[in-house]
Amino acid sequence: MRYFVIFIFCAVFNVMCAEGIYSPCGKLHLTFNLSDGTPCYSLSSEGRRVMDNSRLGFLLADQPDLYSNFSIEKIDTLSFDEIWEPVWGEVAKIRNNYKELCAYLKDDKGRLMNIRFRLYDDGLGFRYEFPRQHSLAYFFIEEELTEFNLGTDCSSFWIPGDYDSNEFVYQKSRLSNLSDVLVRARKSMDSKTIIDNRSVQTPVLFRNENGIYINIHEAALKDYPSMCLTLQEGTYTFKANLTPDPKGYKGRIQSDFNTPWRTVIVSDNAAGILESKLVLNLNEPCKFESTDWVKPMKYIGVWWEMFVPGGSSWNYTDDTNIRLGKYDYNKAMPNGHHGANTENVKRYIDFAAEHGFDGILVEGWNEGWEDWFDKMKFHVFDYKSPYPDFNIEQLNEYARSKGVSLIMHHETSGSTMNYERLMPEAYGLMNRYGYKAVKSGYVGRLYPVGEFHYGQTFINHCLYAIEKAAEHKIMVNIHEAPKPTGMHRTYPNFLACESARGTEYEAFSYNTPEHTTILPFTRMVGGPMDYTPGIMQLDFSYYNKDLKKTLSSTLAKQLGLYVVLYSPLQMAADLPENYERYMDAFQFIKEVPVDWKETRVLEAEPGEYVTIARQDKYSDNWFIGNTTSDHARVAELNFDFLDDTKVYEATIYSDGKDANYQDNPQSYKIIKKKVTCKSKLKLFVAAGGGFAISVKVLKIKDNL
Amino acid sequence: MRYFVIFIFCAVFNVMCAEGIYSPCGKLHLTFNLSDGTPCYSLSSEGRRVMDNSRLGFLLADQPDLYSNFSIEKIDTLSFDEIWEPVWGEVAKIRNNYKELCAYLKDDKGRLMNIRFRLYDDGLGFRYEFPRQHSLAYFFIEEELTEFNLGTDCSSFWIPGDYDSNEFVYQKSRLSNLSDVLVRARKSMDSKTIIDNRSVQTPVLFRNENGIYINIHEAALKDYPSMCLTLQEGTYTFKANLTPDPKGYKGRIQSDFNTPWRTVIVSDNAAGILESKLVLNLNEPCKFESTDWVKPMKYIGVWWEMFVPGGSSWNYTDDTNIRLGKYDYNKAMPNGHHGANTENVKRYIDFAAEHGFDGILVEGWNEGWEDWFDKMKFHVFDYKSPYPDFNIEQLNEYARSKGVSLIMHHETSGSTMNYERLMPEAYGLMNRYGYKAVKSGYVGRLYPVGEFHYGQTFINHCLYAIEKAAEHKIMVNIHEAPKPTGMHRTYPNFLACESARGTEYEAFSYNTPEHTTILPFTRMVGGPMDYTPGIMQLDFSYYNKDLKKTLSSTLAKQLGLYVVLYSPLQMAADLPENYERYMDAFQFIKEVPVDWKETRVLEAEPGEYVTIARQDKYSDNWFIGNTTSDHARVAELNFDFLDDTKVYEATIYSDGKDANYQDNPQSYKIIKKKVTCKSKLKLFVAAGGGFAISVKVLKIKDNL
Repeated sequence: MRYFVIFIFCAVFNVMCAEGIYSPCGKLHLTFNLSDGTPCYSLSSEGRRVMDNSRLGFLLADQPDLYSNFSIEKIDTLSFDEIWEPVWGEVAKIRNNYKELCAYLKDDKGRLMNIRFRLYDDGLGFRYEFPRQHSLAYFFIEEELTEFNLGTDCSSFWIPGDYDSNEFVYQKSRLSNLSDVLVRARKSMDSKTIIDNRSVQTPVLFRNENGIYINIHEAALKDYPSMCLTLQEGTYTFKANLTPDPKGYKGRIQSDFNTPWRTVIVSDNAAGILESKLVLNLNEPCKFESTDWVKPMKYIGVWWEMFVPGGSSWNYTDDTNIRLGKYDYNKAMPNGHHGANTENVKRYIDFAAEHGFDGILVEGWNEGWEDWFDKMKFHVFDYKSPYPDFNIEQLNEYARSKGVSLIMHHETSGSTMNYERLMPEAYGLMNRYGYKAVKSGYVGRLYPVGEFHYGQTFINHCLYAIEKAAEHKIMVNIHEAPKPTGMHRTYPNFLACESARGTEYEAFSYNTPEHTTILPFTRMVGGPMDYTPGIMQLDFSYYNKDLKKTLSSTLAKQLGLYVVLYSPLQMAADLPENYERYMDAFQFIKEVPVDWKETRVLEAEPGEYVTIARQDKYSDNWFIGNTTSDHARVAELNFDFLDDTKVYEATIYSDGKDANYQDNPQSYKIIKKKVTCKSKLKLFVAAGGGFAISVKVLKIKDNL
Repeated sequence: MRYFVIFIFCAVFNVMCAEGIYSPCGKLHLTFNLSDGTPCYSLSSEGRRVMDNSRLGFLLADQPDLYSNFSIEKIDTLSFDEIWEPVWGEVAKIRNNYKELCAYLKDDKGRLMNIRFRLYDDGLGFRYEFPRQHSLAYFFIEEELTEFNLGTDCSSFWIPGDYDSNEFVYQKSRLSNLSDVLVRARKSMDSKTIIDNRSVQTPVLFRNENGIYINIHEAALKDYPSMCLTLQEGTYTFKANLTPDPKGYKGRIQSDFNTPWRTVIVSDNAAGILESKLVLNLNEPCKFESTDWVKPMKYIGVWWEMFVPGGSSWNYTDDTNIRLGKYDYNKAMPNGHHGANTENVKRYIDFAAEHGFDGILVEGWNEGWEDWFDKMKFHVFDYKSPYPDFNIEQLNEYARSKGVSLIMHHETSGSTMNYERLMPEAYGLMNRYGYKAVKSGYVGRLYPVGEFHYGQTFINHCLYAIEKAAEHKIMVNIHEAPKPTGMHRTYPNFLACESARGTEYEAFSYNTPEHTTILPFTRMVGGPMDYTPGIMQLDFSYYNKDLKKTLSSTLAKQLGLYVVLYSPLQMAADLPENYERYMDAFQFIKEVPVDWKETRVLEAEPGEYVTIARQDKYSDNWFIGNTTSDHARVAELNFDFLDDTKVYEATIYSDGKDANYQDNPQSYKIIKKKVTCKSKLKLFVAAGGGFAISVKVLKIKDNL
């Protein structure tokens, strides 16, 4: 990785009460001031409001607040510009170019707090810094008071604020009726620990009266609780709402400490939100000396068959009340439909090898699935005891002989303390058998008792798991994880996480067609998601004639998601036997890369449609994907991003004329045509539909 | 170990509502019955009340209670008799002889609960058993309702019930004014998480109107919260009070599960309480295949010098707000009085080797002591980073060359999750350098947040630490531990724990002279304590002329404690330079064994005095110790426990005539005299005094 760094350092010893900086190209303007000793900022874009005057600070437990009585000791500014190369990503090179303003504050008790702002052309990041000091050595946060004052009613795209789950369908509403929609939406959602009727999770998207798109999130969330936002009654101001610990504290801090960055991505159009690399730029560079063991991967898995009607099970027996390590599975009555059996896994291995997949996830391989869910059972799994019908040694050997590898699964049922105890053994077993990646899960209430999924303790647990896995050269995919905040820049073995409502809900609950048109503007701003697309048998009456159920998608849309929902870890989630019935369409999944050189957003409107083109990192081929809400439309594509010296063959996977996610989701057509950078294309997209296009170099143009 | 086992099994299919059994010799009688479907028991001794009708059962969370609507399915009784040999202990052989009654109950919801009673001649144990069943698979306990109905006002000896500390001075009161004394006592105590004004910790001692001594405690506390007892208003009935978790639940249970045993030791005299092995008998046999690495030990330590006025420090520098692993101690300013420095530790090693001690505890050897106390700091210590002035390799090598070994110290400051993460490394380091034992500590609030020291999670943590240590052949001594419950029978590497107010409080607070006369009847019933006796410089004006402070003991009493307060791990706590000034008295500490063949209680009255004689496990020599309250007296000893074929030389370490714990604690005299089994001895004991006698075989009697 080469770095091009330019530092322009400029210390201004200035105690005036209003400071401002412009972003590198001058588009955005940030002001910082003290109002009666309270730090405040505001943000504008070409003179138009982005964030009105917003206050900053903290309430502390058993200490005076850090919210007022501040004076400015010093203001520093600097400019920074570099280009860096992520280990994997949507693009091969990322420019990190900002103006920085750091306000060094001191309060009337002599306590120091700095607020560091980094202003990009596409947004703002700021964080609190507590320098090492004896008058503020250890403290507990009662509330973070950071405000985001939108100043006006906005369109908003959100899921409810919750301390334990992000697995909700994305909603849209005006801010002025956010509470009403939230109350209504809750009823139809599998609600968890929802905070109140005015809180939303980040990343959250707004569009204000000037048509400016604003995404609020955080970057580099580490040793700190995850932040929701709570709309303050009678205002258009959101305030930070940190996840409490069992005592109600919201962060146990030792100075020197920097909070995560609070991020505000700003764009005149929706596409700009998708193109921003602000969250990644605010994270630390890669911590690992070598990353040759980190490899994006495409995988299949013994997984969806546990979700389809009449499918298989995670558990080996239907007996329950099992005590791990004491129950003798060899004497148990098998239930006859356990998915992770040697023969079945071999079939998946064969399929993966034949079609070029890197890995095979196998869930339900280990003892304990009879009694795993929400029991607050400490020793719920042990990560070393395969079921009697899962020959771990033979299967890994078989996979190796076929050039593929199994992906480990560690469901913890939230028992993080047990998992930490067993990690050395669990990762050691993975190394012994040749597993390269693990999917971990935290379904249900957490152990330690009273901790939330988004609290400081669990945030730290996840990073601990990532770091311990890295010691074993293992890549991780965390489900029921806190929302990502770009930490994969620093820890690139953290390939993906769930942290949103994925495909699984299509089976046991529902998603909406527009869900995947909002995800890229919200959840995905933090990092890759293991959404598990690729379902081709979308009509569940196939499994059970009496069942009237289709998913929220057409088949062509399922292909488009591989490009729209970026991840270095992509699953082809459907059953091998279903892919065998749609080999022509499956070709796209086989071909689509999981690592990219370039990314172009061709069309984007949250809640409506997203079309993205990405160039393979290791060839000149492009791949285009689209997801569309329940409004059928005609997409108009312009191929001007193609190299003008080449002729390409486009293979277009689109909705059939009669396709419709509700009645006819599996109607699709595939056509091939030559395209160049001058080509344009109109494509019908069905309600709940989408499309995918591979654009492969056919030849260098004759006339060159 | 040889076992002599006699089983007499006798299943009585009996659904009558009142059942009874007698103890093996017929002294105690237990009745069990259902009263309106509620299980009840009562206990008498030769027709005299011990426990009046007392109810049994549970309130469960989100489930009907397990307290009423029971019927008896079956009653089983059996007799059991064996002799077993502990790995170490007060005696070399223990008889386990009981009658058992097990009531198999079923409630109107079909849920099964057994209550198993074991009736010994010296008391009762009973526990609840939940057989594996689908109608009661997983449940949370809201309250355990076990009653101990003393039926009458009693003298009582107790410390307050507290979820986080047992480090209180023992109190005595009538039950009828327990609350008054508790409220008054609290003011002068370093109170922690005291529950209310009517709760006491177990083991607790009562003497009822018939002069019967009754100790209530529990045995084999495992995967369950620790129990206090709460006196029910207007009655003489105590009810179980379990330690809650952060959600308020008092036990997360999966059937098949057995609760700890609830124990009632019964004796017509105080000595009987001290002689009872009921708690040990109710524990499971040793879990380890080999125990050759488990060895009782006597040790000194870099410890008391941190408590005496003008002494040394745990911390290396007086700088604070240190971040472990980032702070550079090599660049820090040493405070100049750090105890655990190489030169000083070498001095202790020399002293230990010269005087025959096995180990040297060194506290303050590792980084982090500048910022360790009650900060709720997760990564507070790492157990692998010695301070710059502690040469761990050289010191262990030096100790080995002298035939002694260092004892490791792992203070966690309550951060159990951090300790669990670091255990493999920490124990591994101990193995690498040759440490055989570790003293661990849990000062302050616990991490996981909201957990108490006596809750199920911490109970399980301690057992986890003991088991992981055993994997590394490491012996453990846990401070700030839950009260012991005889688990050292099962895990004999668990040598001792603190779980009471020890010598350290003499330095920074106070103890009372009677404290150690009550400890044997209460705290010590659960297991060995690391009390750290042996202070010879009892007058602190020695360190600082202006300081008027003496400890609660005379010098002779300090010697007596080595016998009175049984432990396989005994410290000689004072400074080497102090021992060098009292080499004649020190001789007793050098000679006193830490493992015993036989034990005889010569005199005992709680709150007044205790005199115990013990025979060395590996010779025919006896050692006698006494501790006395603040009432000076004359002890009358009878040596009839001696072998009548031998003549012995007794070395008597007693209080000087002018001795007094308050004004003249260091006045002692040493005389030698021949004794036989016919000898009697009158010995003056000062206020707050005591004595120690070694009785060594001089010769076989001439006339034999």
